[in-house]
Amino acid sequence: MKKAILIIQCPDQKGIVAEVSRFLYSYEGNILEVDQHVDEEMGMFFMRAAWELDSFSLKKDEIASRFKEEVGERFEMEFKLHFNFPKPRMAIFVSKLSHCLFDILGRHHAGQLDVDIPLVVSNHEDLRQIVEAFGITFHYIPITRDTRSSAEANQLALMKANKIDFVVLARYMQIISEEFITHFPNRIINIHHSFLPAFVGARPYHAAYERGVKIIGATAHYVTEELDAGPIIEQEVARVRHHNTVTELVQIGQDVEKVTLSKAIKYHIDRKVMAIKNKTVIFY
Amino acid sequence: MKKAILIIQCPDQKGIVAEVSRFLYSYEGNILEVDQHVDEEMGMFFMRAAWELDSFSLKKDEIASRFKEEVGERFEMEFKLHFNFPKPRMAIFVSKLSHCLFDILGRHHAGQLDVDIPLVVSNHEDLRQIVEAFGITFHYIPITRDTRSSAEANQLALMKANKIDFVVLARYMQIISEEFITHFPNRIINIHHSFLPAFVGARPYHAAYERGVKIIGATAHYVTEELDAGPIIEQEVARVRHHNTVTELVQIGQDVEKVTLSKAIKYHIDRKVMAIKNKTVIFY
Amino acid sequence: MKKAILIIQCPDQKGIVAEVSRFLYSYEGNILEVDQHVDEEMGMFFMRAAWELDSFSLKKDEIASRFKEEVGERFEMEFKLHFNFPKPRMAIFVSKLSHCLFDILGRHHAGQLDVDIPLVVSNHEDLRQIVEAFGITFHYIPITRDTRSSAEANQLALMKANKIDFVVLARYMQIISEEFITHFPNRIINIHHSFLPAFVGARPYHAAYERGVKIIGATAHYVTEELDAGPIIEQEVARVRHHNTVTELVQIGQDVEKVTLSKAIKYHIDRKVMAIKNKTVIFY
Amino acid sequence: MKKAILIIQCPDQKGIVAEVSRFLYSYEGNILEVDQHVDEEMGMFFMRAAWELDSFSLKKDEIASRFKEEVGERFEMEFKLHFNFPKPRMAIFVSKLSHCLFDILGRHHAGQLDVDIPLVVSNHEDLRQIVEAFGITFHYIPITRDTRSSAEANQLALMKANKIDFVVLARYMQIISEEFITHFPNRIINIHHSFLPAFVGARPYHAAYERGVKIIGATAHYVTEELDAGPIIEQEVARVRHHNTVTELVQIGQDVEKVTLSKAIKYHIDRKVMAIKNKTVIFY
Repeated sequence: MKKAILIIQCPDQKGIVAEVSRFLYSYEGNILEVDQHVDEEMGMFFMRAAWELDSFSLKKDEIASRFKEEVGERFEMEFKLHFNFPKPRMAIFVSKLSHCLFDILGRHHAGQLDVDIPLVVSNHEDLRQIVEAFGITFHYIPITRDTRSSAEANQLALMKANKIDFVVLARYMQIISEEFITHFPNRIINIHHSFLPAFVGARPYHAAYERGVKIIGATAHYVTEELDAGPIIEQEVARVRHHNTVTELVQIGQDVEKVTLSKAIKYHIDRKVMAIKNKTVIFY
Repeated sequence: MKKAILIIQCPDQKGIVAEVSRFLYSYEGNILEVDQHVDEEMGMFFMRAAWELDSFSLKKDEIASRFKEEVGERFEMEFKLHFNFPKPRMAIFVSKLSHCLFDILGRHHAGQLDVDIPLVVSNHEDLRQIVEAFGITFHYIPITRDTRSSAEANQLALMKANKIDFVVLARYMQIISEEFITHFPNRIINIHHSFLPAFVGARPYHAAYERGVKIIGATAHYVTEELDAGPIIEQEVARVRHHNTVTELVQIGQDVEKVTLSKAIKYHIDRKVMAIKNKTVIFY
Repeated sequence: MKKAILIIQCPDQKGIVAEVSRFLYSYEGNILEVDQHVDEEMGMFFMRAAWELDSFSLKKDEIASRFKEEVGERFEMEFKLHFNFPKPRMAIFVSKLSHCLFDILGRHHAGQLDVDIPLVVSNHEDLRQIVEAFGITFHYIPITRDTRSSAEANQLALMKANKIDFVVLARYMQIISEEFITHFPNRIINIHHSFLPAFVGARPYHAAYERGVKIIGATAHYVTEELDAGPIIEQEVARVRHHNTVTELVQIGQDVEKVTLSKAIKYHIDRKVMAIKNKTVIFY
Repeated sequence: MKKAILIIQCPDQKGIVAEVSRFLYSYEGNILEVDQHVDEEMGMFFMRAAWELDSFSLKKDEIASRFKEEVGERFEMEFKLHFNFPKPRMAIFVSKLSHCLFDILGRHHAGQLDVDIPLVVSNHEDLRQIVEAFGITFHYIPITRDTRSSAEANQLALMKANKIDFVVLARYMQIISEEFITHFPNRIINIHHSFLPAFVGARPYHAAYERGVKIIGATAHYVTEELDAGPIIEQEVARVRHHNTVTELVQIGQDVEKVTLSKAIKYHIDRKVMAIKNKTVIFY
């Protein structure tokens, strides 16, 4: 089914829901999903509406301008209009650890993710064979201290050539530069292997082991300039016990990581995430 | 804050959200919460809207008739209008097991449940002292095979005298008659100590033990004539292991029961539950 | 590290732990893990002990007879002695749904499962390419009503030729005959897509949808002659809501299925499961 | 049933389990529970054994010396011998928030906690009535900046007079002095309302709200001199969403707090917790 999805934010006031739904109704929109949220502290209103496009009486490329004119300007809205076609284009960056990558590829193969995956980028050759078996192009871009900036230039060129909409860091163990991030604001999803804000930085499972926590977690978030501080999209946890070694924490944690990352990716693809400052509104 | 809550169900068609929100906006309603759900299979539309009453330009007792005239009739709506004042009135029925009762009383004492509890009814005297310490009247109505119908008549008289809106069976170990149920359709909440539909009937922890399940659960549901088959409001589970005895299952399960029942009560008080046939829509 | 694993069951009496640990100590066994369980109802004692083999002063093939002589006979023990080498050999049966298969292959690739997987058997060709990319032989054995018994004969011949220790049904949508089961008593692991004993049989997600449950689950169990009634190894659950369609239940459930099945497989490989009648003791 | 419980720690070496179980067997001990744990990093061995006392052939007050002589000295063991009678004596400190207190009192009333509760201490009068309805003495000890040290002297005198074994801080909003802590090393259990080490210190729900986490938690830990840094006994979590206000986080969190604290108390009462540096071994 062809769908349009409207994402809105504006200062909170009366009548927004009424006007947006009136607009959609006036062009015979069959609403599929509507969600709204008011952040009292910021005084901001957030809304997501999805409707069938086939029976809508406005043409696809008229909708944005007409909405702006009839509703958006009056309420000082920032809005984005998305369609579920063509599918968004996602790049996956990975190093050697395969669990998140395979989980994404498996879901994609099963038809659970409405996304195109033109390529996987890795700084290691290890995972080429299986990526290619899933019918996806594998790009090996090695990275050393000296080649970092040229490697990143290569990556950016690949993103551009493949019209990539967003990037998933599926346990990619390299730093992403600020320059790279500016090309994909709130469009790079990372999986951090701890329950943030606990255990920011490297080796969180070791840190969790040292502290003797009884639960470990993983956090999927948008990448911003500050390390592990971007807006959190999803978190999951698992119970651990005193007898679990660091190696076991890593294994238990990998299950949590892959589920968390795949959920975050799905929310992003379905346009259910709105990032506001360092937080997210998720309309699932 | 004084709130009005509108609960709607009607055949699905375009324009419902637009018209309802237009109605509220036209009388200067400040919408606090809106949720809607379409059941594709039944072709039915469900909606819940809550708004501030103080700034609303219709008087409290005009709203229903005006809504019916302007919106309801056109869409063939069944709707109910609630206000969060006066508070709904809840009776608790209990036998000897105290965990669910104490959990409810504790939450009520902490201000978590926006409800009045005029009375607790029990077929045993055991829990009188603590109920009364919470400032609630305790009615002892013993039940034997021979006195069942007169006891129930007493209960019904108490419900009527105290203007009870809904009844909570907090591990009340007596059968409720069909007659009693007809006075409170979808307004009697029971906690069943299993993950329904597994282990319907008596001694579900024993049955779970016999079957060797690895997870046990509890189910809060509206009471209907058919045993343990009413619309499910909430379910929760807990993990168990091979070494857990039936006694331990009971203890682990009691924690699950009390959380599940208290959640269901809160949804019901906040008018977030719509029961449709043997299922519920829960707008949390 | 080379390990020996001893699994014991016998009538409960005093002194068993003392005698077993004395035996291991007398031959300089460095105990890695010991677990015991008493089933009061059956009056049975269960124990699992794992120790390092390299520093043990008995030869690998002397241990069983010496243990029987010194300890086993006296306590009327049934016991099994396992070693973690060579690795156990596991066959995977699958139809078209890939989520459980890919999860297992991914874990195996990441070194999480200490098992050899000589082959995957399927009644469809769909998953050949990816299985082979993981370096595993794929056998296509189509099944129709008329060819069922010859197909199963082929399967059994493959199991024998590949010295298969146990079989995993990773959403294999065909009936396994009693004949086949007798070759692998408590050594066929199936994943059932419901929280057993709720929703036995076909189309459990449809049944869950109809009943309006708030939580769905999956159950990994040993296959016995009675459908979905074998000893439960592991269960997991996930929360669902009124707006989830059957299709969404299926997707949410697939995540639960794959985690549940992979956990059960790991317990089985690590010799942590003891099946007793229709229940399991799991020493994790 | 009268039980003896032995808690052991010593440098790891071969033969410990054999010798401990031989000792128990030699005096006809019927072992009820045995657990052991080796911390590879520290090279330390931990063990807990519980057995029936009635059929044991050593007298209650001979056991410790005999065990030391026959087993303990040889393995350089630190050990403690406990009995499940008389019951341990627990004091509860509370301020105004009632949820943890009521949860503990409810469980105690239901017979779930094998402990005596001679008194509740509070710096407010609010909760007196209900505490007394449960048959427990309520001590009001107000605290101001100027009276802090005399108040604490009063508290300590009460602890002594009532032969208190351990103290539970059930959302007690006052600082405990180092002096007080030295009287109860690893015997003061606090509930911190965050998933430590995230959100150490005051107002963790506000901090969680600001950070936009998707899961909140609670942590029960032994109190040490360093704030919120003592050995963690138990942690639990709950899911939250973008629309949850701080007030809602507090309510959701209170459910997590009370479950977490009550579990920790139960582990402590049953002598299942061993605190080692800033971590715990929990033999549940």
